[in-house]
Amino acid sequence: MTAGCGMSIDELLDGNAKLVNSALDSVLPSGERAHSIIYDAMRYSAMDGGKRIRPFLTLEFCRLAGGDVKAALPYACAIECVHTYSLIHDDLPCMDDDDERRGKPSSHIKFGEANALLAGDALLTYAFALASENPFADAARNMRAVSIIAEAAGYDGMIGGQVLDIMYSGREAALDELVEMERKKTGELIAAACALGLTAADAPEEMYSSARTYAYNIGLAFQLIDDILDADELPDDGGDGTTMLAVMTAEEARGFASALTEGAVMAVRGYERSDALVELAHWLLHRNA
Amino acid sequence: MTAGCGMSIDELLDGNAKLVNSALDSVLPSGERAHSIIYDAMRYSAMDGGKRIRPFLTLEFCRLAGGDVKAALPYACAIECVHTYSLIHDDLPCMDDDDERRGKPSSHIKFGEANALLAGDALLTYAFALASENPFADAARNMRAVSIIAEAAGYDGMIGGQVLDIMYSGREAALDELVEMERKKTGELIAAACALGLTAADAPEEMYSSARTYAYNIGLAFQLIDDILDADELPDDGGDGTTMLAVMTAEEARGFASALTEGAVMAVRGYERSDALVELAHWLLHRNA
Repeated sequence: MTAGCGMSIDELLDGNAKLVNSALDSVLPSGERAHSIIYDAMRYSAMDGGKRIRPFLTLEFCRLAGGDVKAALPYACAIECVHTYSLIHDDLPCMDDDDERRGKPSSHIKFGEANALLAGDALLTYAFALASENPFADAARNMRAVSIIAEAAGYDGMIGGQVLDIMYSGREAALDELVEMERKKTGELIAAACALGLTAADAPEEMYSSARTYAYNIGLAFQLIDDILDADELPDDGGDGTTMLAVMTAEEARGFASALTEGAVMAVRGYERSDALVELAHWLLHRNA
Repeated sequence: MTAGCGMSIDELLDGNAKLVNSALDSVLPSGERAHSIIYDAMRYSAMDGGKRIRPFLTLEFCRLAGGDVKAALPYACAIECVHTYSLIHDDLPCMDDDDERRGKPSSHIKFGEANALLAGDALLTYAFALASENPFADAARNMRAVSIIAEAAGYDGMIGGQVLDIMYSGREAALDELVEMERKKTGELIAAACALGLTAADAPEEMYSSARTYAYNIGLAFQLIDDILDADELPDDGGDGTTMLAVMTAEEARGFASALTEGAVMAVRGYERSDALVELAHWLLHRNA
């Protein structure tokens, strides 16, 4: 599949990831200080790679609105810091208690629980420094960026979703409850990533609702595919109340994800320069890992 | 002792605390939602009282610069949310493992460890929503407020101080190391509280350095008095490397605190309307609890 400028989705992802990795490397703290273990812990998780889907969305929505990606990069780094913080705290013993993340020891295994907690706190805090101090946007846009991130990551956003996830681990949840949980837990931050790109580009207001539709749809599709892939890996572990497969078959889930992807594509394909976003939506649907 | 408008320091503290408590009560989330346990956990810790020293500083530095406290109140709430988050995370088992806070069960005892972690995360996140969305200041001031909070609370500020505290618990630290630790751990957030008041009032730049001197001095004096009071309570527990009494006698510590307080007073008493700040500095020095 080819997208913008004849590039494949892999090339597009790689290109944006290189931009973001280089920007993160330059903005994350480094150097020898008495307390620099916190720098190491922040970098260990934030420079861990991954596909950089959220920053990709920030950069591509900036391009969609005709903006200069230079103004979007600090916001892209900020949203990735928030995502990274959420993974570090998720992995802690009192949450999912995961010893590994992307094949490496998770932060609390590597740095100890207290430093991992603080590294997550520091990345969350730093996201707001990055957004508020973006030198390539004016104060009004930076303020909007901070607000977008704070609302998406806050008590009615990502954190609210985490709380629901904890609640629904203990009992069966209905489809609408699971959809709300997933929208909060992952959809809001994905929507924020998209909105940040528009903010960097000073896009017209009507584009924000298209971005929201796109984001919620790919976010839920992403989660459905995740649940299907997880169920394939662990065939006997289908009873967890917080997977969508508790309320539908894998085939239904794939059909649901496919319809959501189509809705996401419809939301953006009326705009020029939407090829990369269309390709991303299809790639997320068809991925095998 | 009487201060501004003939009020005693107790009356001044009470008056400001009432303003802040009422503002916090109105801005913190409430209502019945599936995930509203996070609202309860945020309120449980944030509405817990205390003297509201940091918000006091925000309001009084706003007054010092001739500003309208209405513009300072959202920032005052924000800095208190950051302070509250730091207490919740500090109390967690992987940090200080404290079961009580101000005579009540600490957050993780009351709500469980996962919800306490998330409540801290939510309060930190919400601080940035409050600062960026302050309707009584323009975007430039709100941006500056966000940046002030993020830097003070971040990896080279409060979190850096926590990291040093963990390090120095394991070995003896020198005086300069302890002073740096205390400045980061508590001084930076106190300095931020003062700077936020000036930002709300759109104060001239030269006032910021006076505020910083005042803040660092009362911050360290506060900690010295804390260490003296703690040592009186637990006479056999003097060996903790993270108390200033590891490197000086109680008498020396009191003399040091007294000199710092004098420096704080000197930094602000040239301004009109500094009475409340002068009284606060003296009150912190002479308190018994």
